[in-house]
Amino acid sequence: MVLHRLLGSGTTWRLLQPSQRRQRIARQESEAVWRSIRSIIAVLLALIFAAPGHAETGYDLWLRYAPLAPSQAQRYAPHFRYLVADTTRPTLAAAVQELDRGLGRMLGSPPAHAGAVQGNGGIVLATADSPLLSGLDLPLAPLGREGFLIRSVAMPGGRVILVAGNSDAGVLYGTFRLLRLLQLQQPIDALAVADAPKLQLRVLDHWDNLDRYVERGYAGQSLWDWQKLPGYTDPRYTDYARANASIGINATVLNNVNANADILTAPYLQKVKALAGVFRPYGIRVYLTARFSAPIEIGGLKTADPLDPAVRAWWKAKADEIYAVIPDFGGFLVKANSEGQPGPSDYKRSHADGANMLADALAPHGGVVMWRAFVYSEHNDADRHKQASEEFVPLDGKFRDNVLLQVKNGAIDFQPREPFHPLFGAMPKTPLMLEVQITKEYLGFATHLAYLGTMWEEVLESDTFRPRAGSTVAKVLETPVAPRALTGMAGVANIGTDINWSGSQFDQANWYAYGRLAWDPDARAVDIARDWARLTWSADSAIADPIVAMMMESREAVVNYMTPLGLGHLMATGHHYGPAPWVSDLARPEWNPAYYHRADANGIGFDRTPTGTNALGQYAPEVAKRWGDLKTVPDRLLLWFHHVPWDYRMRSGGTLWDRLVAQYDAGITTVEDMQRRWSTLDGKIDARRWAEVRDFLAIQRQEAQWWRDASIAYWQSVSHRPLPAGHLPPPHPLGYYQAIRTPHAPGNGK
Amino acid sequence: MVLHRLLGSGTTWRLLQPSQRRQRIARQESEAVWRSIRSIIAVLLALIFAAPGHAETGYDLWLRYAPLAPSQAQRYAPHFRYLVADTTRPTLAAAVQELDRGLGRMLGSPPAHAGAVQGNGGIVLATADSPLLSGLDLPLAPLGREGFLIRSVAMPGGRVILVAGNSDAGVLYGTFRLLRLLQLQQPIDALAVADAPKLQLRVLDHWDNLDRYVERGYAGQSLWDWQKLPGYTDPRYTDYARANASIGINATVLNNVNANADILTAPYLQKVKALAGVFRPYGIRVYLTARFSAPIEIGGLKTADPLDPAVRAWWKAKADEIYAVIPDFGGFLVKANSEGQPGPSDYKRSHADGANMLADALAPHGGVVMWRAFVYSEHNDADRHKQASEEFVPLDGKFRDNVLLQVKNGAIDFQPREPFHPLFGAMPKTPLMLEVQITKEYLGFATHLAYLGTMWEEVLESDTFRPRAGSTVAKVLETPVAPRALTGMAGVANIGTDINWSGSQFDQANWYAYGRLAWDPDARAVDIARDWARLTWSADSAIADPIVAMMMESREAVVNYMTPLGLGHLMATGHHYGPAPWVSDLARPEWNPAYYHRADANGIGFDRTPTGTNALGQYAPEVAKRWGDLKTVPDRLLLWFHHVPWDYRMRSGGTLWDRLVAQYDAGITTVEDMQRRWSTLDGKIDARRWAEVRDFLAIQRQEAQWWRDASIAYWQSVSHRPLPAGHLPPPHPLGYYQAIRTPHAPGNGK
Repeated sequence: MVLHRLLGSGTTWRLLQPSQRRQRIARQESEAVWRSIRSIIAVLLALIFAAPGHAETGYDLWLRYAPLAPSQAQRYAPHFRYLVADTTRPTLAAAVQELDRGLGRMLGSPPAHAGAVQGNGGIVLATADSPLLSGLDLPLAPLGREGFLIRSVAMPGGRVILVAGNSDAGVLYGTFRLLRLLQLQQPIDALAVADAPKLQLRVLDHWDNLDRYVERGYAGQSLWDWQKLPGYTDPRYTDYARANASIGINATVLNNVNANADILTAPYLQKVKALAGVFRPYGIRVYLTARFSAPIEIGGLKTADPLDPAVRAWWKAKADEIYAVIPDFGGFLVKANSEGQPGPSDYKRSHADGANMLADALAPHGGVVMWRAFVYSEHNDADRHKQASEEFVPLDGKFRDNVLLQVKNGAIDFQPREPFHPLFGAMPKTPLMLEVQITKEYLGFATHLAYLGTMWEEVLESDTFRPRAGSTVAKVLETPVAPRALTGMAGVANIGTDINWSGSQFDQANWYAYGRLAWDPDARAVDIARDWARLTWSADSAIADPIVAMMMESREAVVNYMTPLGLGHLMATGHHYGPAPWVSDLARPEWNPAYYHRADANGIGFDRTPTGTNALGQYAPEVAKRWGDLKTVPDRLLLWFHHVPWDYRMRSGGTLWDRLVAQYDAGITTVEDMQRRWSTLDGKIDARRWAEVRDFLAIQRQEAQWWRDASIAYWQSVSHRPLPAGHLPPPHPLGYYQAIRTPHAPGNGK
Repeated sequence: MVLHRLLGSGTTWRLLQPSQRRQRIARQESEAVWRSIRSIIAVLLALIFAAPGHAETGYDLWLRYAPLAPSQAQRYAPHFRYLVADTTRPTLAAAVQELDRGLGRMLGSPPAHAGAVQGNGGIVLATADSPLLSGLDLPLAPLGREGFLIRSVAMPGGRVILVAGNSDAGVLYGTFRLLRLLQLQQPIDALAVADAPKLQLRVLDHWDNLDRYVERGYAGQSLWDWQKLPGYTDPRYTDYARANASIGINATVLNNVNANADILTAPYLQKVKALAGVFRPYGIRVYLTARFSAPIEIGGLKTADPLDPAVRAWWKAKADEIYAVIPDFGGFLVKANSEGQPGPSDYKRSHADGANMLADALAPHGGVVMWRAFVYSEHNDADRHKQASEEFVPLDGKFRDNVLLQVKNGAIDFQPREPFHPLFGAMPKTPLMLEVQITKEYLGFATHLAYLGTMWEEVLESDTFRPRAGSTVAKVLETPVAPRALTGMAGVANIGTDINWSGSQFDQANWYAYGRLAWDPDARAVDIARDWARLTWSADSAIADPIVAMMMESREAVVNYMTPLGLGHLMATGHHYGPAPWVSDLARPEWNPAYYHRADANGIGFDRTPTGTNALGQYAPEVAKRWGDLKTVPDRLLLWFHHVPWDYRMRSGGTLWDRLVAQYDAGITTVEDMQRRWSTLDGKIDARRWAEVRDFLAIQRQEAQWWRDASIAYWQSVSHRPLPAGHLPPPHPLGYYQAIRTPHAPGNGK
């Protein structure tokens, strides 16, 4: 297909058969011959892209740099004749390599490398202190350390495209942006782009164990081949760094929050150093998780009490040791006193005591602590929804300046839909990071197509009303709590050794969207989806538009067939694969789906209003009022906050029961709709990726049905109500679904 | 480099810059222009090969089909103008696809597909029953079901290359052979090749768990993505099948010998069916391991006693169920009563009772049982070397016809060097398969370069003297115990999801060599190495020859720095990564290195002569005599069979102690030699693979030193002898080496 498009209609590959070629060429003028050669080059570049293991596997992500049509390439080429940059600086060298790669593929040849501006049609990469920029009076100062300008400017030697920043990293970000403009086939004749990230720390959290098992990972093993490090650094580490830098991610936590202290031992620090060395040119700093009991496990101490002087000294020495090995080490991420992890509560100390001790050890080196607010306790009978706020709000103002509190988007645990976490806006003196889960632990693993940009957008644009109306979660994140206070966002990575990185082609979009939203939490999910689809599949809108439509409807489909109308936490035990709303016998109440849905003969839902647990009381009064009132709570959060009779009349008409059943079927209908859209793209995109998505959608359709049937069979066993007209009963009795076991499903933190 | 060679000296890539091209071309005649076009095509095909994720990663294995130099391609092209084959038959369609791929890449364009012979220069694929072959009187009958002929023949319509076999699989094997001839740039003008496998079952054993963990795997996860099966079959499964078919492997055991009965449940059989469907066109049958206690675990029975009628009925029904799903299912591989696995001994039944029960269940469907002889017991105080023979020799003649006994190459466990297993030749009424370990559990995991072809050759050419001199292990394998008795060989796979399949570029050679030796146990390791090097790296002997030299010396290097002079089993506990000759405190005696080396102040080595355990008595008298006498035992097996004083004078001169130290250093010297050879290839092969091997060799050098230093430090603590002149003492005290911990080393069967 690509072949035909590039060669034009009357010409075919058979043209190239020796017996025919000579005759044809002999008849033609040399200009025409040259057109043929160009076509051949284009065809063969296209073939390079079609080669197995290359573009068609998805390995290249959104950095495919697909060859442009000759007409388009001819329009761009005069602007990219040469480039000027100080390639002795590693980050600028990385930018130049990316230009060589990207322009080489898109235009057919990379730019020449020049020592100075030498006529029109150059690219100049420079930082604010470069003599090249003197006299240009560029408004760089307001862009901060990582912002950039891209400008078409006249320099003494000629007209060039200037990519400028206050740091080398800024220039690198600008370079990736410039390449994106070409990939998206935007006009570049009069460039005037200025951009800067709205958050300082844009972090990927890898839940990767040292044996390369990825907890909640559905994309193969951990990228980090610890056994071969530091002696061997896989070229893939560089491609990982390129992908991150291209979307502005500047921090990576290499290992699991359920931590192993071995990562802090000298041999592993040498391995971490090797990775940090690969990532450094790409503006990415390395962080590690700190197991709170490390002083006992690898330090030989008898305690890990954060107020114990020996413990404090151990961490200080450990921080010194780390920085001696990795001078730009980022800091620690900590999960403490949560789901069995050790922490300061083991010694009757507060989370602030624990975080501050680590912060004090890191502060002399400029490191930070990211302390997770995801805590709930088996010794706490309160609604799990409330526990993090009860624990942390009283600590507001008690953390060191180099501590950020890392707060999940919702109060439970990355469900397909949750209301925003009540901590946002509730700790005005504490830097809060948003933590989202890119890996789809609760949204169908790798095979379900679920674009999470819309989910994160929903959270980011939620109004906390704190301190005032319009204080969205995005604004809370973006507004430093003090002039130089930290800001940030973290995403739990969905990356592994699978050739396509993320376990599926479409899960790449979630990595991409996370990076774009961490750079700009006010960005629109649909714009990000459009960019990703055009970069990853085709700049042709006849191809990209249906893909964007699929993405935009995808997450709501998952909500509908898994957890409609504000339900949540209905998945099977352990691996979280498949439905199990009936589970009610696990040791801790909040591990059970039954704890969350509270379905009985009368109704369903969790009363979190003042008549129930009053978790709503943790939100601003405006929020509590709207969500607490059945007349104003949106249907999508109905059962999250209310226990409602099965016969409750929905505001939109019909009973809750009828509506609940309809939502499940709506979810399936949407998956079928995605299948239909995808089928129209057969033959229009490369066959291997197309077939993979087709097969995954078929799996999704089947599993959506499983979720729907199992859930309805269970609800019906509780509600004792007939299915509404037009909705088929589950084909099997409830016991059939309850008997399904999938013991080897991936990701179960074993 | 490739670029320059293909374009010729005076021409450079810059030629292709638009501003220069037009002028040049205008000056030239169309013939000359055409030469340029051809060059460009060649260059771009070469670029395809250099594209990241493609050939340079190693993904293409020995099936790279690197573009031939134009002169070479022109010589071959007239022979491959078109092909004739019945592509409605899946295996012939696979052969045609391979020709399209291989010839397309090597020659620049695939052959035309024709319905009949249409002039000179065709390829004809046909089985014996094809009308195309009538009148040719080909000697196909002696070649058996899987053999093939490749002949240059004159047919009524023209001169063609004929690939003929008695089965479609035979034709496929012949097709791969033909492609190999081109890859090796052999003359093809008068082809007359006839070949057939010497063994019937050529099996890969995957020690893959259902959660994709590979026991003793160093190449990523299991290829089998069980969760996505059967809905999604990764295109990689096809490439796996192609690679296997290209070397004649015709059977794959999908799961670990430490088995999980879940593989035999209905949902998993659907997944297995999907894999079998991918492999079938490539002549590969699927086998599974059968957990002996499956009737209890998934069958709900109270016993797995092989003589219990309910158990026998359960297995019969299970076999019927499997064959209803997979009609060409191969059969079961069983590890029973070994290392904690359940088995017939749990019910006081013999291995024959267990194997025969399964054989009876499979027999109606034509399935076979591969029963492992690798057994040793904590209730048996005998030398572990003797236990398998003691257990199985008395059972000779007691197995059903469709049972093979699968015997490891040596009596212990895949050590860097072991004498051949005494069972070979000792069970004249029982089909014996040889089991070798392709994955390098004991030879340095993925990073040590160790070509195992030489190791397996050493075993295969060992003379068992049973029934007579010249009865090598190869002959024992090749000679059916009865006219239609089974023969076979099994290799424990080293394959995983790593992009290079085997964890390292050179470990691909072991997969390759295994297949070649299973096809022909009399093949020479050096010939196989030469073929592999030319296929995988370059047909240019200036490149291939040093690579072959590295391969041929590599395994002896590992023996020397790990287990010289007949030592064995000296590795660290559990993961088996690194040296630990000092370990002597594990629960079972035969788990301890000290059990094997028996070093004390007087000497070292395991007395297996009549003064010791007399394991030698299990061999033929000729063998026992030679190895039992210090005057005739080869140095390489000295300490395997003898406990020898440190001051023993070696026949080659010097004391044992001095020689032992020298062997360690010889091992390191050889690794340095490999590094030197490899460094000469810098720039001559693709950069990424070259750098990977360079880095792995550096790791090997470092770990060889670790093995040498740790071992010598320990031996010296026992021998209390000074190091011989010219050999450096270990840089650290013994305690340093004993304190090294690598808890997260891969492959440890967790």
